[in-house]
Amino acid sequence: MDTKIILSEKELPTKWYNILPDLPEPLPPERHPGTKEPTRLPPPLFAEAINDQEYSTERYIEIPEEVHQAYKIWRPTNIHRAYNLEKYLDTPAKIYYKYEGTSPPGSHKPNTAIAQAYYNKKEGVKRLTTETGAGQWGSSLAFACSLFDLELKVYMVKVSYNQKPYRRMMMETWGAKCVPSPSPDTDFGQQVLKDDPDSTGSLGIAISEAIEDAFKNDDSHYSIGSVANHVLLHQTVIGEEARIQMEMAGEYPDIIIGCVGGGSNFAGLFLPFVRDKIDGSRPNLKIINAEPASCPTLTKGLYAWDYGDVAGMAPILKMYTLGHNFIPPPVHAGGLRYHGMAPIICHLHKLGYVEATAIHQLATFEAGVTFARTEGIISAPETTHAIRVAIDEAIKCRESGESKVILFNHSGHGHFDMAAYDAYLSGKLEDYEYPQKMVEEALKHLPEVNE
Amino acid sequence: MDTKIILSEKELPTKWYNILPDLPEPLPPERHPGTKEPTRLPPPLFAEAINDQEYSTERYIEIPEEVHQAYKIWRPTNIHRAYNLEKYLDTPAKIYYKYEGTSPPGSHKPNTAIAQAYYNKKEGVKRLTTETGAGQWGSSLAFACSLFDLELKVYMVKVSYNQKPYRRMMMETWGAKCVPSPSPDTDFGQQVLKDDPDSTGSLGIAISEAIEDAFKNDDSHYSIGSVANHVLLHQTVIGEEARIQMEMAGEYPDIIIGCVGGGSNFAGLFLPFVRDKIDGSRPNLKIINAEPASCPTLTKGLYAWDYGDVAGMAPILKMYTLGHNFIPPPVHAGGLRYHGMAPIICHLHKLGYVEATAIHQLATFEAGVTFARTEGIISAPETTHAIRVAIDEAIKCRESGESKVILFNHSGHGHFDMAAYDAYLSGKLEDYEYPQKMVEEALKHLPEVNE
Repeated sequence: MDTKIILSEKELPTKWYNILPDLPEPLPPERHPGTKEPTRLPPPLFAEAINDQEYSTERYIEIPEEVHQAYKIWRPTNIHRAYNLEKYLDTPAKIYYKYEGTSPPGSHKPNTAIAQAYYNKKEGVKRLTTETGAGQWGSSLAFACSLFDLELKVYMVKVSYNQKPYRRMMMETWGAKCVPSPSPDTDFGQQVLKDDPDSTGSLGIAISEAIEDAFKNDDSHYSIGSVANHVLLHQTVIGEEARIQMEMAGEYPDIIIGCVGGGSNFAGLFLPFVRDKIDGSRPNLKIINAEPASCPTLTKGLYAWDYGDVAGMAPILKMYTLGHNFIPPPVHAGGLRYHGMAPIICHLHKLGYVEATAIHQLATFEAGVTFARTEGIISAPETTHAIRVAIDEAIKCRESGESKVILFNHSGHGHFDMAAYDAYLSGKLEDYEYPQKMVEEALKHLPEVNE
Repeated sequence: MDTKIILSEKELPTKWYNILPDLPEPLPPERHPGTKEPTRLPPPLFAEAINDQEYSTERYIEIPEEVHQAYKIWRPTNIHRAYNLEKYLDTPAKIYYKYEGTSPPGSHKPNTAIAQAYYNKKEGVKRLTTETGAGQWGSSLAFACSLFDLELKVYMVKVSYNQKPYRRMMMETWGAKCVPSPSPDTDFGQQVLKDDPDSTGSLGIAISEAIEDAFKNDDSHYSIGSVANHVLLHQTVIGEEARIQMEMAGEYPDIIIGCVGGGSNFAGLFLPFVRDKIDGSRPNLKIINAEPASCPTLTKGLYAWDYGDVAGMAPILKMYTLGHNFIPPPVHAGGLRYHGMAPIICHLHKLGYVEATAIHQLATFEAGVTFARTEGIISAPETTHAIRVAIDEAIKCRESGESKVILFNHSGHGHFDMAAYDAYLSGKLEDYEYPQKMVEEALKHLPEVNE
């Protein structure tokens, strides 16, 4: 009985899939944070090739040979059939998961980190700056920069910097520099610290710091780990592999599930499948975005124009948002603590092609422990959101007797999140209420944009 | 250019390889710690099937279906060609490594943990006890016990318990109980604590505690993670896979390298190859055991009869030893801090089929950082001993112009050892001198055995 669907390196996709030309309605273009007019990504911040990809109308984009070769350090990744979990749940559902945790940093993030490091190196950039939440993105870009011999400075959200010191050490092992954000290293960081010396930080603040740093240093570019179109594009290598693998298994998923913060891991899996729903060939395909109840962007946010960062230096995006200066409660799923969401996902949600659900922290850890004790893998707190929904859907199948095919993206392992599991197992973990008033306040400060 | 040699689940070996019938001279039999006469493993401690395997004369032993199925959670493991490292070293050598770090606990240890959990479960045992050094073994047995629904208590060497809290949390996530050793939970632990309340512990002490616990509890068996013949047997799944993979690459290794504490990861790789040297078909095959300079069992120890543990409750083994009450300096490679070595490896070393080299801590971390920055993977401190020797051999090839094929066992990742990397990168790590006087003193207390 085969447990894994394994691809050879020869089957590693040679192209990324770009959803933009297949969208039933065009994506609202990004706006310049100053002029508020449609714009490309701020020119001094990104490599030209990346800017071109952000707005490309080509359906498939060739993966450069150097990127393809670097992917082979760990790709293709396996799809596992979760037989043990199915047995434990006594469900007729068939549960599959794409496991992205075997990359050296332990998540899906290097799929875009490697591409971004490559394009910047090729265009003569010497140094990158970025932000990181839980540290998955920062360590992935550190890994990528070590492969392509680039300097890197990472602004890490302070709550995670303190909770997860091993992620910083990992970045340093790969040669990067990492500081807690808000930091005194930027004007914006200084201002935040002046207003609130105890600020635990947020992804939005860290983004502003990293952008400011790149603006001020001629040899530097900025690099972003989620949200942007080009990031989602690079992540489609996940879904392109998964399509081949599900075909090998003789299955097509009824339900696809993933956790979403900025949305890139899940979009990477579902974009190559959602086109079948858009073109009408798979009208019943159900695509579920799993987000934290304490930061419920898709389920409680407003579909509006908002800044990608706190300081208003990043482009203005049409997206579901909780307000760019909303700071989410310090849940352990640091990678999901973001006020907005990838515009592509928001657009598809608005059009009814994908749905969303919000889950409390304790329920996600319960699912994570069940998964560890059946399937073996200890999962990142972010990933346990997807596991929770997969388990719930499988239980529904037990009740209805339906043998649905469930596919979820297992975005990474939890080796650097053991303190969170420890807190959960010793009863010290809590759920956070949705901070409705703080969101209402934050939503008063959206930028005004003429459509 | 393929980077990995990937096997399908259909190619997962169905048999373990048993070296015992192929040894050019028979292995000296284990002696009972009390009578000092040849003996089977202490009967109340081990499952019958495991006892049978310890002394089997069958060349191949069938892997039970349930074990084979559980292996598929992560096996077969890939062999990687270290192109980036070769390029960095500017060497004509071809460096291959078998990567065991993708198992849920992150090392080779589950290869035997799963087999032992299975056999004990099958024979009606409810609970296992064991010791662990760095935590790799304890967490692997915790993982295996969760799969086969067994209780587990782990005695973890105190220095590692304090250095690596995440390993304890990992065991608890899989449902095991873990205490620092020496502990007040056993008579022997109490005695050690009385003599030295600040004892940092050792594998030998922890073994004694785990054995005492199993002896005193009727529903419990003891489980060991290295040294014993049956452990090495289960680990040969590594080498059996590697033989197929090297054949697929069209290569046969000139040099095989691994790190050794008790010796099981490396024996698992080299035993299926050393038979070619024993039968004369590969007379020039070089097999190098890499051990810490602070605990140099093979390079400085005495080939003599000695207890496997500190208290003298484990069988007496003919092996290279530094004395059973020698406590090695607290190097970060906790899994290599053992006074003895697997009798099979010692026997092959004595007969000249394998060789050994001892390496200082700083040199191993330097190799680990080089490996992380070229091949991407952050390696366990134990594994960096093998990497160091592989790099040194590749440098020799650069100097001699020889294009040798080097294969080493990458026994696991270093995700739970980031504090050690942090100490190294910030210049706080030190080398330990070989504690010659302590060894001389310890060697005065070997048991007397009539051959």
